[in-house]
Amino acid sequence: MTTEQQNREARLTDRVVASFDGTPDPRLRELMRSLTRHLHSFVREVRLTEEEWQRAIAFLTATGHITDDRRQEFILLSDVLGVSMQTVTVNNEAYGDATEATVFGPFFAAGSPAVEQGGDISGGAAGEPCWVSGTVTDTSGEPVPGARIEVWEADDDGFYDVQYDDDRVAARGHLFSDDAGAFRFWAITPTPYPIPHDGPVGRLLAATARSPMRASHLHFMVTAPGMRTLVTHIFVRGDALLDSDSVFGVRDSLVKDFTSCPPGTPTPDGRDLGGRGWSRVHFDIVLAPRSP
Amino acid sequence: MTTEQQNREARLTDRVVASFDGTPDPRLRELMRSLTRHLHSFVREVRLTEEEWQRAIAFLTATGHITDDRRQEFILLSDVLGVSMQTVTVNNEAYGDATEATVFGPFFAAGSPAVEQGGDISGGAAGEPCWVSGTVTDTSGEPVPGARIEVWEADDDGFYDVQYDDDRVAARGHLFSDDAGAFRFWAITPTPYPIPHDGPVGRLLAATARSPMRASHLHFMVTAPGMRTLVTHIFVRGDALLDSDSVFGVRDSLVKDFTSCPPGTPTPDGRDLGGRGWSRVHFDIVLAPRSP
Repeated sequence: MTTEQQNREARLTDRVVASFDGTPDPRLRELMRSLTRHLHSFVREVRLTEEEWQRAIAFLTATGHITDDRRQEFILLSDVLGVSMQTVTVNNEAYGDATEATVFGPFFAAGSPAVEQGGDISGGAAGEPCWVSGTVTDTSGEPVPGARIEVWEADDDGFYDVQYDDDRVAARGHLFSDDAGAFRFWAITPTPYPIPHDGPVGRLLAATARSPMRASHLHFMVTAPGMRTLVTHIFVRGDALLDSDSVFGVRDSLVKDFTSCPPGTPTPDGRDLGGRGWSRVHFDIVLAPRSP
Repeated sequence: MTTEQQNREARLTDRVVASFDGTPDPRLRELMRSLTRHLHSFVREVRLTEEEWQRAIAFLTATGHITDDRRQEFILLSDVLGVSMQTVTVNNEAYGDATEATVFGPFFAAGSPAVEQGGDISGGAAGEPCWVSGTVTDTSGEPVPGARIEVWEADDDGFYDVQYDDDRVAARGHLFSDDAGAFRFWAITPTPYPIPHDGPVGRLLAATARSPMRASHLHFMVTAPGMRTLVTHIFVRGDALLDSDSVFGVRDSLVKDFTSCPPGTPTPDGRDLGGRGWSRVHFDIVLAPRSP
């Protein structure tokens, strides 16, 4: 490529960047300038062809058209490109030994059922019972009583309740840490499942020989006054998918031992599981202060 | 920011880039790796907040939902970010004194009416008559006879025919250069108009204090055997919008003198314009070889 051509391309980028000079909001100005520079760098670096540009337009159009109130294909796209996880990483810098954050995902629903300590959030969802216990503390080790702990997960068939057409509410709930910061509840043992892959994002994964599977996980969102909200998962040690999670959500510190308990093993709360096997996991949650 | 945090962010980018290692098509692998690096660099550079990420998802969703068979908001978005023009620039490197390319735009329609040399492409569209003449040559100055010259433009109200609901065909047509490579036809004098700005892209322009107006122009697409297809516009010298074209399509070499001819000025072909004024412009088109 000639210097003259490089200059033409650079001058065009400069012109577009300068077009945002008059943006009243300085933050929006910064965002648009940076986005412009990076998009132009991409086009120039790969020498994007006009046909490839047209395919990109068609891909975004299809992504928009499959997106509705129940399906958010742009979030999936952000997830599989690791953009969601990078945003989480940028916004949740490590603070002492505070529990690490991971992606929120598209399946949280507000207004989950309240359960008592020791209650069951499964709501009839299919799956092996799993006893989850732990504590909520701050980074100095002091208990955080009354922390709101939201939990949600997919069922044994790989679907969240909101993915069914019948308005069921299952495998989702919230409780509050007790005076010692402790919590305990029944859930179901997490199992792997694919992200929705019958749309444009699924076709992208197929074309790049990537799996749509997510490593098995249980979602948590923990809020308490004065504390940074923690959005995270715990993962299952030994899961073969830990190194290839389709949304890059796995962090080593979030991989936990889910101990398998054969049928007949006494349960911690004396619950009769009718001869079924179950599992147990312990998760100590450490919250960072809201404004470190 | 700590080095540890920088490393966490860099490692995540590396993991996502590596996830494309198995892509069978080497070009797709290159595109996805580069796109990932640039998107992650953007997020890290601006320290994108989670709220800003959510607004970006909502913006893309709205852009998808307003897009249909008649309205292509993703192309508009690419246009106002200069991504379309950068793609044109990358794909149309200068070749000798070949005429420069500019953006295609969303308003071309296949199957335009054929007009004879000296014919009128306006098809009844409102506007001042404009006599357009010129030649098509190669870069050694040899005439290119039989080149197909497609022309399209907005009417005096700022709309292309395809933007009306009545299936009209107007201000659009094609003809062929004659044995000397020459062409001449009647069109209408180009006037400025806004790109569609009642959607998400319009709101982005408003938030960044940018105008949606395009500098006045007449579209050309010129094809001939063995020649690189030329997609371009000509612009009107003196137009106040030349420096602020909303899609960055203006190139100095494409700005032409549209000479204003008062009512009563004899027309080149003796056509009686019923006492109206008219304009004239000359445009010599130089085509690059297909494979330089």
